[in-house]
Amino acid sequence: MSDNKVRLGIIGLGAQGSMYASFIKDGMVPNMEIGAIADIDPAKREVAAAKYGVPVHADYQSLLASGDVDAVVTTVPHYLHPEMGIAALKAGIHALVEKPAGVYTKQVKELNEVAAQHPELTFGIMFNQRNNPLYQRIKEIVDAGEIGKIRRTNWIITTWWRPQGYYEQSAWRATWGGEGGGVLVNQAPHQLDLWQWICGVPKSVYSKVAYGFRRDIAVEDEVTAVVDYGDGATGTFVTAVHDLVGTDRFEILGDKGKIVVDGSKTATVTRLMEDERELSDSMGMEDVRKLFMGEMDPTTYYSQEVVEFDSAWGAQHSGVLENFAANILDGTPLLAPGSDGINGVRLANAIHLSSWLGQEVPLDFDEDLYLKELNQRIRSEGTFPEREAQTVGATAGDRK
Amino acid sequence: MSDNKVRLGIIGLGAQGSMYASFIKDGMVPNMEIGAIADIDPAKREVAAAKYGVPVHADYQSLLASGDVDAVVTTVPHYLHPEMGIAALKAGIHALVEKPAGVYTKQVKELNEVAAQHPELTFGIMFNQRNNPLYQRIKEIVDAGEIGKIRRTNWIITTWWRPQGYYEQSAWRATWGGEGGGVLVNQAPHQLDLWQWICGVPKSVYSKVAYGFRRDIAVEDEVTAVVDYGDGATGTFVTAVHDLVGTDRFEILGDKGKIVVDGSKTATVTRLMEDERELSDSMGMEDVRKLFMGEMDPTTYYSQEVVEFDSAWGAQHSGVLENFAANILDGTPLLAPGSDGINGVRLANAIHLSSWLGQEVPLDFDEDLYLKELNQRIRSEGTFPEREAQTVGATAGDRK
Repeated sequence: MSDNKVRLGIIGLGAQGSMYASFIKDGMVPNMEIGAIADIDPAKREVAAAKYGVPVHADYQSLLASGDVDAVVTTVPHYLHPEMGIAALKAGIHALVEKPAGVYTKQVKELNEVAAQHPELTFGIMFNQRNNPLYQRIKEIVDAGEIGKIRRTNWIITTWWRPQGYYEQSAWRATWGGEGGGVLVNQAPHQLDLWQWICGVPKSVYSKVAYGFRRDIAVEDEVTAVVDYGDGATGTFVTAVHDLVGTDRFEILGDKGKIVVDGSKTATVTRLMEDERELSDSMGMEDVRKLFMGEMDPTTYYSQEVVEFDSAWGAQHSGVLENFAANILDGTPLLAPGSDGINGVRLANAIHLSSWLGQEVPLDFDEDLYLKELNQRIRSEGTFPEREAQTVGATAGDRK
Repeated sequence: MSDNKVRLGIIGLGAQGSMYASFIKDGMVPNMEIGAIADIDPAKREVAAAKYGVPVHADYQSLLASGDVDAVVTTVPHYLHPEMGIAALKAGIHALVEKPAGVYTKQVKELNEVAAQHPELTFGIMFNQRNNPLYQRIKEIVDAGEIGKIRRTNWIITTWWRPQGYYEQSAWRATWGGEGGGVLVNQAPHQLDLWQWICGVPKSVYSKVAYGFRRDIAVEDEVTAVVDYGDGATGTFVTAVHDLVGTDRFEILGDKGKIVVDGSKTATVTRLMEDERELSDSMGMEDVRKLFMGEMDPTTYYSQEVVEFDSAWGAQHSGVLENFAANILDGTPLLAPGSDGINGVRLANAIHLSSWLGQEVPLDFDEDLYLKELNQRIRSEGTFPEREAQTVGATAGDRK
């Protein structure tokens, strides 16, 4: 550290890497400074050197070996996150991986294993939405049992609209071999993470996934998933990139209340006076009559609160950077531990696999089967190498 | 007809039959008068005679033969709707069946066949929600192609909250043998009808259905269904009886727009300036950049309209009665032709069957298999007779 700041190495100066670089340069991350930048593209290295005045590297190994960085962030195509995270941790360098933690669980498991062998190093993941105070508050409410045991969840998140031009920005995007999926791997990992962070990891999933439905791409552009939490509770998750006026509506129904989140901005929290089932059991015929005649006074049974926070642009991402640095410097608890990343990847994999097999699959699906199915799709594509646990490949440096 | 009014025979003076009787008595249905009332319960016959001053009958056959009625409405347990509808039509009497048209498609098919043999008679179904001006307007917008080809539908309709006491009002309710199902058969038929009326009939369905999950009943109290329209379009349907602060949110996404209906009261209609895919294809990098920076001006791409109507209590039901009478009297087109009833029953059957088999089922599923599976559940219950196409049984007269 220099002056008690974490010297961050940025691997990949695409749109995401550039954004983090400017946050740090602009003083939005007081605990950090840029230590070095790596990019395989000479033009980007030139920009990096000129704009940020830091050492630049043509490959991330040389950045790791330079002694100029205490930590790295991996703003590179998804397949590379585990490989680079592992290399950093093995070199004694703290690692903040971009989301998703990887494309398939086998490679993410390996990353988590290496991280577990290095408890002295900080291992984080860029789940910036966990830094949304609204979702933090919702998690608090759920964790405190204020809405009781969860019985049902629904998330429709179709605000990930992307035009065809977006997919044509680079050759790896929206391919099986270069990106490993579509909306599940690139856009929706935030919600897949929040969903399981707040509501728990489901036991099984059934999905309908549309591949190249409304966009000329090989991977998925629309997803419908039904999950089963194994204790009677179920949920749905719907996402798409072709809804220009997208919906973002997340509902959690518990025994003692309900939370409805609109636009990731406003949460309406209902708290029942007692457990819904006890309430149902205690109602007499007169109550039933009132219900049918619309004469029921809801305040007899519940109270409602609307939760809302202001949120500044960029504050979520810079906040994750700052929290990651604070964990390195003084042990401040991590908002998004890197080892949590596998949950979202597992969910995304299970959703893909269910649609490929045409049947419900458990969350502890056969990971070799997943990789085999994925490699089949990479092979048909004929552009990128097939994958193993930790194959090096693809092109670093692009916007996520 | 007397004084050019349709003389309606009400079969079953439970809560629903009583409601229609009072609508007519109160002059809310100018084209109708009560011709006679049938109920198997002597106490209800006494009430009927005293309150409405019309002939009463202990069985519906005697009402049909009395010469006192031009038409009947079947406010009796669901299994009996086809049987009574058939008997009425065969006796030359117009038939308005309560929803659902029946419990299983085999019996409803028979009803439709008899109705087809009697084109001179009016055959309607009490889909009162079709009389909601909001849904009529939405259907107009969709049918006129204003939002383009439908690509996606979602309906979360959990406003059907029912306490345990509701289920204990009568022995037939929420049983396989007496009612034939739960929320799919009793409450949600309205939405199953509107959904397919507006968006079309799907080709297949996969479901997760919870039986006796949050209520002590044999039948379903929560449903999650994923449908496939066969042309890439998909949809979800979620309903439950245990959400005290229920959600009613219906979304239809088309190529040229989107409709979001909240609480069956307000519809936000978005109309794109051009087809979404053409719009996506025409966007350059600068547009993509604006999108990412939140600088996109949505009015460049679409306009929005909020549609809302006032709706008086009871007006939907009395309107269906009035429309049914008008069809008899002067051929006014039927809002809810009886033959449409089978679509909702088929959807409900497919949803049950998918959950029983644990797999996706086509909408043209094996009807004998459905009946066999249903009869298995009736047999285990041990209270009611098994069913064939047109078995007489169960108890008439209760609230729906």
